[in-house]
Amino acid sequence: MKNSAPNRPSLDDFRKQIINGNRVVLAQAITLVESQRVEDIQIANQLVEALLPHTGKSMRIAITGVPGVGKSTFIETFGKYLTAQTKKIAVLAIDPSSYKTKGSILGDKTRMEELAKDPLAFIRPTATGATLGGVADRTREAILLCEAAGFEIVIVETVGVGQSEVAVRNLVDFFLLLMLAGAGDELQGIKKGIMEMADAIVITKADGDNVKPANQAKADYQHALHLFSENTAGWRPRVITSSALENKGIEETWTLIQDYFNVIHSNNSFKELRKQQNLVWFHDSIQQHVRQHLLESVKVKTHIQNLEKQIAENRILPSRAAQLIIQDFFQT
Amino acid sequence: MKNSAPNRPSLDDFRKQIINGNRVVLAQAITLVESQRVEDIQIANQLVEALLPHTGKSMRIAITGVPGVGKSTFIETFGKYLTAQTKKIAVLAIDPSSYKTKGSILGDKTRMEELAKDPLAFIRPTATGATLGGVADRTREAILLCEAAGFEIVIVETVGVGQSEVAVRNLVDFFLLLMLAGAGDELQGIKKGIMEMADAIVITKADGDNVKPANQAKADYQHALHLFSENTAGWRPRVITSSALENKGIEETWTLIQDYFNVIHSNNSFKELRKQQNLVWFHDSIQQHVRQHLLESVKVKTHIQNLEKQIAENRILPSRAAQLIIQDFFQT
Repeated sequence: MKNSAPNRPSLDDFRKQIINGNRVVLAQAITLVESQRVEDIQIANQLVEALLPHTGKSMRIAITGVPGVGKSTFIETFGKYLTAQTKKIAVLAIDPSSYKTKGSILGDKTRMEELAKDPLAFIRPTATGATLGGVADRTREAILLCEAAGFEIVIVETVGVGQSEVAVRNLVDFFLLLMLAGAGDELQGIKKGIMEMADAIVITKADGDNVKPANQAKADYQHALHLFSENTAGWRPRVITSSALENKGIEETWTLIQDYFNVIHSNNSFKELRKQQNLVWFHDSIQQHVRQHLLESVKVKTHIQNLEKQIAENRILPSRAAQLIIQDFFQT
Repeated sequence: MKNSAPNRPSLDDFRKQIINGNRVVLAQAITLVESQRVEDIQIANQLVEALLPHTGKSMRIAITGVPGVGKSTFIETFGKYLTAQTKKIAVLAIDPSSYKTKGSILGDKTRMEELAKDPLAFIRPTATGATLGGVADRTREAILLCEAAGFEIVIVETVGVGQSEVAVRNLVDFFLLLMLAGAGDELQGIKKGIMEMADAIVITKADGDNVKPANQAKADYQHALHLFSENTAGWRPRVITSSALENKGIEETWTLIQDYFNVIHSNNSFKELRKQQNLVWFHDSIQQHVRQHLLESVKVKTHIQNLEKQIAENRILPSRAAQLIIQDFFQT
């Protein structure tokens, strides 16, 4: 397929430049995978596929937490700590609310200012506006592109208030949840199910008067995680306290993450995890395509609305309504 | 459509007898909705649909817990308490493992012996052996049949070790989890996510030497639920201790359940919950039918296996593999 867009590298140029670590081209490539245009999607697929042999080598880490928890500060401090050790890190920031607020992440230019200037770091907000499935797909491909460009640690940042964390959980190896001390009430901001996905919790802002409540919160969460954790990969989630202000808990976080990867590499669950995630991706994609085909059928769309009304009024059995939709769809 | 099976009531007889509370016919009707035969499915759908106006009035309650928690004993004691107040109760027991063990529920004839003899109670094990989606569908229809037969409380019993609880959560109004005292280790038997679906936890066997650990477990779980609960319907999950032996906590459980229904009726979330569950049912059914159509295509089946192998070896992008499947499917 010809790539006819002006000012855009050819597929092969794209591939080579990304492998060379050219971050301008990397940014262009991420824009390409984010595009909804049919031609772009085809080229993006070809590009990511051409880069596949160069992917998979990074530590994929999700970092989440509600607004106000100090996510940017933590990621900046943590990121600087890593680049000081000559690690190349990429930060992909997802904010599903940004399509409403016109970019709460994009708009906030002062975020991670220091890290943004770091030659070993690459920061990229994800343009959203589509479904969560879409966000996940695009983030997945952005991770692969960053890996092909040689980033050793890819951090996916989410805002910790919605369903995007569940989608992101399937894209990463390690899930880190940031929490504030003070316990109890602020948790209302964390959606059910997010906490128990965590491989670790970091209690932020554990400095000054906050040290004592932070330690209390640490004990509380450690206890709660103990009750709830599934412990499948031979890993028991841990809680640590940190202060970006006093540079506390940053090294500990990195040690913990390395411990985690050591564990999952040694018991083979890393390989299994990645494989399972790819199979989930495959089957999710199939479902997504079929659903799209189904919902794009105008006839079916009207039919679904009518039936939903009848269901709400208890006039038809939902399973029979579904049969009607299917008959309709496979006749067209 | 003619109902030609011998010894089986006509559709209209089925309908009338069920509304009259004939439990022999009710049992036959549940067998009908459990059937996988195409003709039976059609008649079952017609029957449930004909009965729709007579459904929806019961309290739908899930009770779950790992084997050994004392589920049968609790349900029997609780059931007897309810029938003593002239409540009509139905118990539908789902055991997804029974297709392996050839009926761990069906085989155990001594379960709920007292309750089984009670003229106000109806106990029905669910024949399983199919997918969870199938179990959920059949249980959903069995609930509706029991409601049409006049049962005021329908208890769905599951074994608390698998995914069936997640499916069942969408069928009921109230989700009760039974737990043993002793905390910590026995929780390993409870799958991630089941505890946080609970509207209430009952700590069983809180008698004799167990009273102290039961109270400690109560405090622990109350704390954990507090940290994890979403509290959407204006309800905060509660924990109580009980002893079937000493008849303790049974009345308290019933009071708690009534409190719950009062709350969700008064803030309108009951109506919303039921409506949402029906819409979930509708859309799940659509997905299920489409998936079935897709997977039944022999060509697609082989294709999926080949692609899964390629994905595991990192040779193809999962999203592109999905596109290939879809092209294949919609060409046939």
